[in-house]
Amino acid sequence: MSLPMSSHRFDVLISEVGPRDGLQSVASTMSTAHKLAWIDALAHSGLQEIEVGSFVSPKLLPQMADAAEVVAHAITLPGVTVMALVPNLRGAEAALRAGVHKVTLPVSASPAHSMANVRKTPMQMVDEVRAIAALRDEIAPQALIEAGISTAFGCTLQGLVPEDEVIALALACVAAGADESGLSDTTGMANPAQVRRLFTRLRAELGEQAGAAHMHNTRGLGLANCLAAYEAGARTFDASLAGLGGCPYAPGASGNVVTEDLVFMFEAMGIRTGVDIDRLIAARQPLAAGLPGEELHGMTPLAGLPKGFAPHPYAPA
Amino acid sequence: MSLPMSSHRFDVLISEVGPRDGLQSVASTMSTAHKLAWIDALAHSGLQEIEVGSFVSPKLLPQMADAAEVVAHAITLPGVTVMALVPNLRGAEAALRAGVHKVTLPVSASPAHSMANVRKTPMQMVDEVRAIAALRDEIAPQALIEAGISTAFGCTLQGLVPEDEVIALALACVAAGADESGLSDTTGMANPAQVRRLFTRLRAELGEQAGAAHMHNTRGLGLANCLAAYEAGARTFDASLAGLGGCPYAPGASGNVVTEDLVFMFEAMGIRTGVDIDRLIAARQPLAAGLPGEELHGMTPLAGLPKGFAPHPYAPA
Repeated sequence: MSLPMSSHRFDVLISEVGPRDGLQSVASTMSTAHKLAWIDALAHSGLQEIEVGSFVSPKLLPQMADAAEVVAHAITLPGVTVMALVPNLRGAEAALRAGVHKVTLPVSASPAHSMANVRKTPMQMVDEVRAIAALRDEIAPQALIEAGISTAFGCTLQGLVPEDEVIALALACVAAGADESGLSDTTGMANPAQVRRLFTRLRAELGEQAGAAHMHNTRGLGLANCLAAYEAGARTFDASLAGLGGCPYAPGASGNVVTEDLVFMFEAMGIRTGVDIDRLIAARQPLAAGLPGEELHGMTPLAGLPKGFAPHPYAPA
Repeated sequence: MSLPMSSHRFDVLISEVGPRDGLQSVASTMSTAHKLAWIDALAHSGLQEIEVGSFVSPKLLPQMADAAEVVAHAITLPGVTVMALVPNLRGAEAALRAGVHKVTLPVSASPAHSMANVRKTPMQMVDEVRAIAALRDEIAPQALIEAGISTAFGCTLQGLVPEDEVIALALACVAAGADESGLSDTTGMANPAQVRRLFTRLRAELGEQAGAAHMHNTRGLGLANCLAAYEAGARTFDASLAGLGGCPYAPGASGNVVTEDLVFMFEAMGIRTGVDIDRLIAARQPLAAGLPGEELHGMTPLAGLPKGFAPHPYAPA
C-alpha cells in the first residue's frame, strides 16, 4: 500500500481533531462555510492531519450532516491528510466514497462503554474493523484505517480497565486490518505512569503501527500525559484547537488537549511539529467567528510566546 | 544541624506557597483570621510544608504585614515546616525571630531581573545568603535556608538565561551557606527538556541539597514541567492551592502550578505525597471565604476524582 501522506515529515505529527471532536461536542452547529474557512486556517498553520468530521446519522449528530461536503473541500488542501471518524462499516463506506485519506474507528476497551457508545462489544468492533479493511481494499486501497482504543486509561462506567485487555484489543484491531492503533484517554483518567506503561507496550508490540496518543485535559494532566507518551515512543498526538470538545466537565474546564499549548511544548523542547504557532493562534479567529460565544481554552494564546523563544523554522508543505 | 521536619516523609514533598506567593499576587488583602483558618485547612490536608508569608516592608506589601502573627500560629501546627520568603538579611532576621523553620530567598539568575526585583546583582545576593547563614547560626541554628534561583528558565527582561550561569549561581548559594537551592520558572517560560537538563545537573552537583522545582502554568506546561523535574530527581515541588498567584497573564490563566492537580498527578502515578486530596479540595473553601470574588483555578476540583481512583492511604502527621 502506498501511504503518501502518513509518513511523519517532522519529529511528531499533530493530528487536529477540533472540526470533528470539537464541533461534535458543542451544542451549536457551525455552518459549512465557517467550517471550511476554519479548516483552511488550520491547514495554513502547517498542520498535516485534520479530522474534519464524523460519518454518522445526521439525526444523531446534525453538526456533522455536511461531512461529505467538508471532506470534498479538505482533500483539495495540499499536504493535509484528511481524516473522518466512522462508528461502523456504513459510516466507513460513506467516508471512503467521499474521498477521505484515513478513517478512524473508536473501539472501546471497556465493554460497558462500548455497549453504551456503539451497542457492540469490543470483539464485535474488531469484526467491524475487518469488514472496513475489506471494503477499503476494494473501493479505496490507498486509504488508511486507524482504530483508536477508547477508555484505554479508565472508564467512567466500569472504573479501571485492565492494561492487558487494552493492549490485546489494539493488537486484535491491527490483526483485523487496521493500519494503526492508538490509545485514547476518553474519560480524562490517565496519569503519566500509566501512559508510559501502555505506550511502551503498544510500541513494543506494534512498532510503527502504534498510533496516536489522544489525551484529555480533564484534570489538567493533558500535556504531562503527552510528554509521557512521547517518551514512550508515541509520535502522533491528537489535539483540538482552543481545547474545543472532549466532553469538558464544567465551565472553564478544557476537554481535549489544547493544540496551541501542545505545539508550544514540543517546539520549545526542540521537537519539530511543522506547525507555525502564530498561524495556529490565528486559526482561533475563524473558529470563534463560526461558533460565537463558545469559550476558547489555551494558555499560550493568552500569554504569548516567551521572549527569546526560537521555534524550529517553519517548513511550508 | 538537626533538620527535624525537612526530611521527606513521603515520596515527594509538596510545598504549598499559596499563603505567600498567592496572597502576595492578588489585589485584595486577606484578613489574619482568614489566613489562619486557611493555613489550618491546608495543614489538615496533610501538607508538610507551607510558605506562610513574606517578611518585607508592609509599605511595599501590605498583604504581608501580619507575617509574624501568622508564623506564630503556624508553628503550633504539628508536622508542618513553616516557611517564609525573605528578600534580604533584614527580612531574614525578622522571620527567624518570629520562629520560622525555613526561610527562602529569591536569587535571580538574570542580572536584569535581579536589579529590577531586589536592586542587587546575583553575586550581591550570594553575599546576602552568606550573611543570612551567619545570622541563622547565631540566632536560630535549627532553621533552614533555601535559595530559590528565580528566572532559571528564562527572563521576560533579558530572554534566555544561560544554563551554566543558573547552575553556577545555585552552587554559589550553597557554598555561601544555603541548605538547599531550587530552580524557579518565575516567568513561565520553562519547557520539559530544559527542566530535565537543569534538574539533572542540579542533582548531580548538589545531591540532597538540590531544592524545590517551582513551576508556573503560564503556558499550560506546569505539570509537564513538574513531571520532567521529578524524572530528573527533584523531590520537592512548590504549588499553590487553586493556582493562586504567580502573576497570571490574563483572566482564566493560572500562574502557579495548582496544588490539587499536582497532588492528583503524583498520587495517580503511585507517588505518595502524604496529602489527602478531598481535604485539600476542601481547603479551597476557607481560601474563597477570605478572598471573595477571586477566581480559583484547578481542573481536578471541577472534575472530581475518577471512578476507581485509589490514592495511597493517607497517613496523618
